[in-house]
Amino acid sequence: MSTRNYNFSAGPATLPLSVLEKIQSEMLSLPGVGASVIEISHRSGPFLEIAGAAEANLRKLMQIPDDYAVLFLQGGSRLQFSMVPMNLLTDEKKSADYIITGSWGKNASQEAVKEGGVRKAWDGSDTSYTRLPAASELDLDSNAAFVHITSNETIQGVQFAAEPEVGDVPLVCDASSDVMHKPVDIKKYGLIYACAQKNAGPAGLTVVIMRKDLLERSKDSLPGYLNYKTHADADSMWNTPATFGIYVLKLVTDWLIDEIGGLEKMHEQNKLKAAMLYEVLDAYPEFYQGHAAVDCRSLMNVTFRLPSDELSAEFISAAKAQQLTDLKGHRSVGGIRASIYNAMPVAGVETLRDFMKDFASKKA
Amino acid sequence: MSTRNYNFSAGPATLPLSVLEKIQSEMLSLPGVGASVIEISHRSGPFLEIAGAAEANLRKLMQIPDDYAVLFLQGGSRLQFSMVPMNLLTDEKKSADYIITGSWGKNASQEAVKEGGVRKAWDGSDTSYTRLPAASELDLDSNAAFVHITSNETIQGVQFAAEPEVGDVPLVCDASSDVMHKPVDIKKYGLIYACAQKNAGPAGLTVVIMRKDLLERSKDSLPGYLNYKTHADADSMWNTPATFGIYVLKLVTDWLIDEIGGLEKMHEQNKLKAAMLYEVLDAYPEFYQGHAAVDCRSLMNVTFRLPSDELSAEFISAAKAQQLTDLKGHRSVGGIRASIYNAMPVAGVETLRDFMKDFASKKA
Ligand SMILES: Cc1ncc(COP(=O)(O)O)c(C=O)c1O
Ligand SMILES: Cc1ncc(COP(=O)(O)O)c(C=O)c1O
Ligand SMILES: [Mg+2]
Ligand SMILES: [Mg+2]
Ligand SMILES: [Mg+2]
Ligand SMILES: [Mg+2]
Repeated sequence: MSTRNYNFSAGPATLPLSVLEKIQSEMLSLPGVGASVIEISHRSGPFLEIAGAAEANLRKLMQIPDDYAVLFLQGGSRLQFSMVPMNLLTDEKKSADYIITGSWGKNASQEAVKEGGVRKAWDGSDTSYTRLPAASELDLDSNAAFVHITSNETIQGVQFAAEPEVGDVPLVCDASSDVMHKPVDIKKYGLIYACAQKNAGPAGLTVVIMRKDLLERSKDSLPGYLNYKTHADADSMWNTPATFGIYVLKLVTDWLIDEIGGLEKMHEQNKLKAAMLYEVLDAYPEFYQGHAAVDCRSLMNVTFRLPSDELSAEFISAAKAQQLTDLKGHRSVGGIRASIYNAMPVAGVETLRDFMKDFASKKA
Repeated sequence: MSTRNYNFSAGPATLPLSVLEKIQSEMLSLPGVGASVIEISHRSGPFLEIAGAAEANLRKLMQIPDDYAVLFLQGGSRLQFSMVPMNLLTDEKKSADYIITGSWGKNASQEAVKEGGVRKAWDGSDTSYTRLPAASELDLDSNAAFVHITSNETIQGVQFAAEPEVGDVPLVCDASSDVMHKPVDIKKYGLIYACAQKNAGPAGLTVVIMRKDLLERSKDSLPGYLNYKTHADADSMWNTPATFGIYVLKLVTDWLIDEIGGLEKMHEQNKLKAAMLYEVLDAYPEFYQGHAAVDCRSLMNVTFRLPSDELSAEFISAAKAQQLTDLKGHRSVGGIRASIYNAMPVAGVETLRDFMKDFASKKA
């Protein structure tokens, strides 16, 4: 038995082993510093170097233009559900358009309603969030303050393959569960936010990437912590940031650059991994019933049901016996969910694929 | 040369070596779990056990009664500067009293003003926050929504030795830099908040301890993340909490219970450590000019100036050569600050004391 499982948790989620080994080796003292990374001031030279490297890595990997700010915040993506409209929905004559493709988009819109006018530009709830809207189905307001999407719905496993066309209205994207899984054209976005604990690091850090001109919308009357401009002006050091999270983000982005070779390569690997599992679903369509419509399938969260809850439970416990863990679907949806983020090794997905084939051939 | 310095940083700050060693030993896999603590779901059995143990340890150490909730939040104490008035200052007929004894209390009051009526019950700014108010100096409103104090002003190094008498008005305390440094009677407080990165763990976690009846003041219209009731009802799992921070808090409180022997013992050690440094200040009163009035001296942050900025700079670099680091005073105050939180070993303070005596005898 290995001491480490293949852990398909939806988040907090598996991290590259080499990252964990680096954290371990430096835990008592950062080389040359004489203290652990979790013991040093966020304003100290060694920490500013780490935070600077984390931001530089992100800018390089994601090709973030200079007219975008990168913020390191706390509070998770759910605090962004409120901060986005508190900062961007400040013109009382405008409302915000929400394209709701799953549970997280729905939660985001419910917080936005508390802050200002909200329109549902599309809502997939009547088909249980199994699919994405066609362009012709979107009811967009060309005068909206912003359009909000969830690039990957972690619970349902539906993912946009390309950004919807929203004209000149700033596109705001919750990329919590697929940030950095492939190259994207940042210029198409007004603001991208992502909690780190799925594809970027540990829980407790949230990255916000936003066009600097949008900072002008933030009013001085906002609570200090909730004002994007406060954080942008202070380079995310208005107060003590989540220093450990920023350090791990630096290591994860080092890994993406040095070991994976960038986001094109990461994308190839992610497509390969997802295809291995979807092929099994397609080979046993009555036994493994995929949740997402085929053309909306997520590369990150593979969601399906077995013919009965008993078989789902049996699947989960047989998988666990082979050190394939955390495969239970979200409590609101049930069934099975295999989260295969960037850091899930190809070997882990191969092992799961073989297990799934074997289980189906015995039980189907 | 040791690989670890004695690190007098005001926060993030030094942690017990045994805690760091434990984190290190478990970084690749929690025993029996097969994944790192930073890779597992906050809703998983192993993590719920850790979070439960962290809360149980806090309740035991601090003797927190059952009618108080314990919340694990993100955003640092500065987010609490806003959350406290957003949740507790909801009766428009009431205002809040702020007793301002240093920079942090001032910052807290400035955020509160954005949320409702604020009265300054006392403000020590005209004497540069060197002292605390006498009971007779307090201008308290018996109808206030709450009274806010900062138990230890981290920048100035002034600390309340006992709570001010505030009658029936709930006392709210920013205990960021002295939480768990001694036993306190929780029943005297309505709410206590503390970011973890000084006396309790790493940056990214903030602990809130509050009387449950005060939760009734939180309105449903509040943004979800900013509502104490949301977090209390969900046992701090409304969204993904700072899991690593909670894990380290569990280890730090294990250390306080098992290695230190509780908060009485911790207090004895803290008094001993502080006395060692204040004795040097008193022995060389012209050379080491203490900031705080003698009866308001902090057990956590020892603040003083040397006769010139040049001597301060020389002090800092000579100390660093002896692996005594992070002694520079806060940029708003200057001079020297030695932060000697719970985790600073007695040996570290002895080494600093000896260095200070030696430096004074050569330079005074
Ligand atoms: C797409 C998406 N948005 C938002 C969230 C909420 O993030 P947090 O728990 O950090 O608030 C999650 C996951 O938890 C998510 O997957
Ligand atoms: C007493 C006190 N209050 C508040 C803060 C602010 O905490 P944070 O940086 O976590 O917002 C600090 C230290 O940074 C502090 O010492
Ligand atoms: Mg508004
Ligand atoms: Mg910057
Ligand atoms: Mg109000
Ligand atoms: Mg509880």
